[in-house]
Amino acid sequence: MAKSKYEYVRKFEQNDQCLLNCWIVIRIDGRNFHRFSDAHNFEKPNDQRALQLMNKCAESVMKEFTDVVIAYGQSDEFSLVFKRSTSQFGRRASKLVTNVVSLFSSSYVFYWGHFFTYQELLYPPMFDGRVVLYPTEKNLRDYLSWRQADCHINNLYNTCFWCLVQQAGLTSNQAEDRLNGTVSSDKNEILFSEFNINYNNLPQMYRKGSVLIWEKMSDPSDSSQVNNFQKTRRQVALHHTDIIGDTFWNEHGDILDS
Amino acid sequence: MAKSKYEYVRKFEQNDQCLLNCWIVIRIDGRNFHRFSDAHNFEKPNDQRALQLMNKCAESVMKEFTDVVIAYGQSDEFSLVFKRSTSQFGRRASKLVTNVVSLFSSSYVFYWGHFFTYQELLYPPMFDGRVVLYPTEKNLRDYLSWRQADCHINNLYNTCFWCLVQQAGLTSNQAEDRLNGTVSSDKNEILFSEFNINYNNLPQMYRKGSVLIWEKMSDPSDSSQVNNFQKTRRQVALHHTDIIGDTFWNEHGDILDS
Amino acid sequence: MAKSKYEYVRKFEQNDQCLLNCWIVIRIDGRNFHRFSDAHNFEKPNDQRALQLMNKCAESVMKEFTDVVIAYGQSDEFSLVFKRSTSQFGRRASKLVTNVVSLFSSSYVFYWGHFFTYQELLYPPMFDGRVVLYPTEKNLRDYLSWRQADCHINNLYNTCFWCLVQQAGLTSNQAEDRLNGTVSSDKNEILFSEFNINYNNLPQMYRKGSVLIWEKMSDPSDSSQVNNFQKTRRQVALHHTDIIGDTFWNEHGDILDS
Amino acid sequence: MAKSKYEYVRKFEQNDQCLLNCWIVIRIDGRNFHRFSDAHNFEKPNDQRALQLMNKCAESVMKEFTDVVIAYGQSDEFSLVFKRSTSQFGRRASKLVTNVVSLFSSSYVFYWGHFFTYQELLYPPMFDGRVVLYPTEKNLRDYLSWRQADCHINNLYNTCFWCLVQQAGLTSNQAEDRLNGTVSSDKNEILFSEFNINYNNLPQMYRKGSVLIWEKMSDPSDSSQVNNFQKTRRQVALHHTDIIGDTFWNEHGDILDS
Repeated sequence: MAKSKYEYVRKFEQNDQCLLNCWIVIRIDGRNFHRFSDAHNFEKPNDQRALQLMNKCAESVMKEFTDVVIAYGQSDEFSLVFKRSTSQFGRRASKLVTNVVSLFSSSYVFYWGHFFTYQELLYPPMFDGRVVLYPTEKNLRDYLSWRQADCHINNLYNTCFWCLVQQAGLTSNQAEDRLNGTVSSDKNEILFSEFNINYNNLPQMYRKGSVLIWEKMSDPSDSSQVNNFQKTRRQVALHHTDIIGDTFWNEHGDILDS
Repeated sequence: MAKSKYEYVRKFEQNDQCLLNCWIVIRIDGRNFHRFSDAHNFEKPNDQRALQLMNKCAESVMKEFTDVVIAYGQSDEFSLVFKRSTSQFGRRASKLVTNVVSLFSSSYVFYWGHFFTYQELLYPPMFDGRVVLYPTEKNLRDYLSWRQADCHINNLYNTCFWCLVQQAGLTSNQAEDRLNGTVSSDKNEILFSEFNINYNNLPQMYRKGSVLIWEKMSDPSDSSQVNNFQKTRRQVALHHTDIIGDTFWNEHGDILDS
Repeated sequence: MAKSKYEYVRKFEQNDQCLLNCWIVIRIDGRNFHRFSDAHNFEKPNDQRALQLMNKCAESVMKEFTDVVIAYGQSDEFSLVFKRSTSQFGRRASKLVTNVVSLFSSSYVFYWGHFFTYQELLYPPMFDGRVVLYPTEKNLRDYLSWRQADCHINNLYNTCFWCLVQQAGLTSNQAEDRLNGTVSSDKNEILFSEFNINYNNLPQMYRKGSVLIWEKMSDPSDSSQVNNFQKTRRQVALHHTDIIGDTFWNEHGDILDS
Repeated sequence: MAKSKYEYVRKFEQNDQCLLNCWIVIRIDGRNFHRFSDAHNFEKPNDQRALQLMNKCAESVMKEFTDVVIAYGQSDEFSLVFKRSTSQFGRRASKLVTNVVSLFSSSYVFYWGHFFTYQELLYPPMFDGRVVLYPTEKNLRDYLSWRQADCHINNLYNTCFWCLVQQAGLTSNQAEDRLNGTVSSDKNEILFSEFNINYNNLPQMYRKGSVLIWEKMSDPSDSSQVNNFQKTRRQVALHHTDIIGDTFWNEHGDILDS
């Protein structure tokens, strides 16, 4: 069984190194999550447990791949951004995306019970992943803005839709018809006048999605400190905040500089 | 929150369609599985439960992606072969590899308890994946032969190594030194003369790895049959057999023709 | 002027090696050749000089890159096929396509005067090039058949069109209208009944295009031969023949086996 | 001759669109130009005619592809930079590089006689081309600096080398040995003390290479101007100047902003 005569097949592997000095975004999307969320009785329009589980999976990935400088999630998707100078896996696209998707997926099952206490996991979920490169900070921020604007638009629509269905008793088709052609202000007005809901008072996690970044934290558990030297370490911090405007980025200037 | 002004960022995604009429091999490899197998007390040199779990994950992938015509696994790796004419995901490499790796990974956690009854899963595992294209049947068969020859070589070595350590009481370094420079016949002789083991009598799964293919099976549960018309359906069948020689391929001519 | 601090920019170059064991087709197309042929008073529907010049350029490329096993040309395009095992330029797509296009283009100007005796070259022409990989003989032959069928269809149309314009005095629009909706047999009939032309008697170069292959030829100039040992060498041979059917390939079995 | 049954082969073409918002550099290199320059009796260390011909070819390309914002040439190479927002050829790498290389190559032959009055062109030259993407201005400027530093280093070496050979009568090997291990200041000293040459007084074209950019020029031939309205148009302007420092870029801020 001479292995060597077959080893030429390795040469068919193709190099897929990401262009240097670009931000590497890995976006993970749930596959067939409409069916998955029905099968597992996710609450509508948002299931807090499911979103927290997604955040936990992203945190799990960030702790393994510390070159991820920011992650943004909403619904059944998460975008993880590797710093532009990363040399993780020699920047090979397939290595990066498969490791990230793999750990995200296995974490989803592993941590399921931490969030879904009374709902058994019925079958293993599936996520796809893709790699997108952005050459400039502006492009990267526009990417993240795109996902957050998408979160807002979908959440406003879904909030209205499920009020109409769950509270007003409309069928799905009736609710769709009712919302057809409405703009944001119309939907806000429906929520306020018909359901007494001020959209802006709904939880930030639903309206803004979830932002994970590294933050330096003083470590009170560290008793070894002497002479007022305060040891710090990085931790993954969770925010539900606007990342379209400049405020967030001004307050966390190190994210894109790192 | 005008989403449209950001949507241009979608255009940064790059097409990665696999060349038509080539076999698409997805190879999955455990990441840091040396540490993982230690942490979870895998039996050495082979842990039957771990191999059966790997096979279950591969079967799970094949049932989801029925264009996989054959899968071959050994140790912590599995190769899944999409038929050359597949149009799954428009043959996009990143879609194919991420979905396969994702389902494999989530299945690993999901089905862990089916095989590891007394060993808790301590942390989520990770697998990487890669896509390799093979233009001809010969190239594809050589690829599979390469993996099976690798299985043989590693298993023979590991079987000797762990006999020397577990039964003869050598340290790891001593066992390595003992095996250094030996060829296959030497290792067979060591096993036979010192440990009374006929290598060829060891379980086929350890020596040959695992082969998953689709097989047509008559369905006795189908009571609707009339006039001797026997309904058949495809099922994933597991073999531990040689796939380097021609016999297997002659007996299953439909695998590569499909 | 420390060059070394800038040399990191080399790492931005990306590998574009062609998949192994595939036929590598380089197709060259004239850019803006409608304008070019008008400016240089090409005869319609076919200019023998222009076609011979194209053939000369392809021959020039084949003599430089001897791994090209067959080249097929028609109109302002040429396809050059590198053998599937070629390691020319490490199979790097950009190296292959640019060298071929470059030599073809410089040859076009260099040899212009050999064919266009009375027509000065007014400006440098331009060709684009692309790389296409074919995994099997069938795919490759279908590619070449596609180009030759294209040659036939265009040439039949153009022959009719220019008869109608040059001999029957129709305007371009009138000729187009006349041919609109006609099938091959209609066009053959127009040529025969109105212009007394039997299409099948027109020069093969116009109807079939040009095929360049390597052929072994005895070398009568070699006086060193002894004992009836006849030295042979390869030369580029030009054919105007059908390459869709099997006859050509049966007669030149070494083209695809090489 | 049904063309349609073969047309599937088009689907084997692969998309190679360049990442958006990156500078696209096409670098052209002479192939086997050592032999070419010997065969055509190029003057050493620099042949003014050959450099001017290269500049003419680059100008020819810029006039055809007006999205090229700067071109830099030295010796037998030229780098042409497409603006980062270009949509020329849909940013397809193979289209960009082959058209540029093709026109450069055909121009080289076409314009040969304009510069080489007494030296016939003996055979068609060949250039290769490659595409390199740069995400930031800094990366792009570092690329150009790399090429200009290379020009300086090679030219200083070659100037010394050919003085030693042509004037001091050393053999090639002796000249190489003499220069082995020398740094820039040593070479300057050799030129000054032994050959009475102040390197800095040599022609800028040899020391700095050639820079082609677009410049707005008033058009005195335009007699239609009224009311002091001065029509301007862009012309390709040739410079032999430092592009490593900031001065050039400050003076031509529109090159990278365009």
